[in-house]
Amino acid sequence: MITAPTREDGPQIHTVNANTSVFSREEVECVDELWQDYQSQGPERSGYYFIVEKEDGRVLGYACYGPRALTDRTYDLYWIAVSPGARRGGVGRGLLGAAEEAIRRLGGRLLIVETSGLPRYASTRAFYLATGYALEATLKDFYKDGDDLVIFTKRL
Amino acid sequence: MITAPTREDGPQIHTVNANTSVFSREEVECVDELWQDYQSQGPERSGYYFIVEKEDGRVLGYACYGPRALTDRTYDLYWIAVSPGARRGGVGRGLLGAAEEAIRRLGGRLLIVETSGLPRYASTRAFYLATGYALEATLKDFYKDGDDLVIFTKRL
Repeated sequence: MITAPTREDGPQIHTVNANTSVFSREEVECVDELWQDYQSQGPERSGYYFIVEKEDGRVLGYACYGPRALTDRTYDLYWIAVSPGARRGGVGRGLLGAAEEAIRRLGGRLLIVETSGLPRYASTRAFYLATGYALEATLKDFYKDGDDLVIFTKRL
Repeated sequence: MITAPTREDGPQIHTVNANTSVFSREEVECVDELWQDYQSQGPERSGYYFIVEKEDGRVLGYACYGPRALTDRTYDLYWIAVSPGARRGGVGRGLLGAAEEAIRRLGGRLLIVETSGLPRYASTRAFYLATGYALEATLKDFYKDGDDLVIFTKRL
């Protein structure tokens, strides 16, 4: 079931990130910080919304999104990750669809997804192309030399 | 002279922004917030660096930049503005060059500049093309319908 997470889901979200095999330590820590802001301030004040897919109390995956400052109803999908053991079961697709639907309910107009151009993110990029996103821009060497930023967008 | 601003320069920076004729009220308030963070936490902790061009105590223009999280030495030029009365005198070009030099000294590798695709930003876009930036990406309808995000980059 996809739902808003409870405070107790925090450690499991951390574990999902730590087990992705693609996130760096800094990236895992970044999500931890967004989670703390979400817990202490709530989604509207912090600007970070979380949803989780849970099964028997176990977090299979999560997504985090929020509005982009100084835009008219443009949202960012900040993070989405699925536990290695739960992959290929549609969890990621379900979370992405639920995030889009929640953003639509918030009035969202455009959703931005940023990811890496590295080979190990090829399945991530294929996932967005398969779920209706347009590859709209690439910034060469953005993350580091040889690691491009790839930006996908979807009208909601 | 281009220098780090003092606390007393804050109101003048605000006035430069309020007088640009292109910034919205939300954008002016956003710079005010970055300025407050810069004042209370300093550049390294806040992630916001300011420089000003001053003449006889009067702020002619300023720039604000900082490192992009989760990248290897990529920096953003967040804001740059020149007082209407001081335009066409090379103040903007001087501030941009000083910001680039300061970012190089901080170890910066790549500088990102984001602006709008609206007609009233045509001179802004021409300014970046004339100062060695590459127009690397456009995100359609990013700010609002009909108002694209235009991204320029420069290797430092």
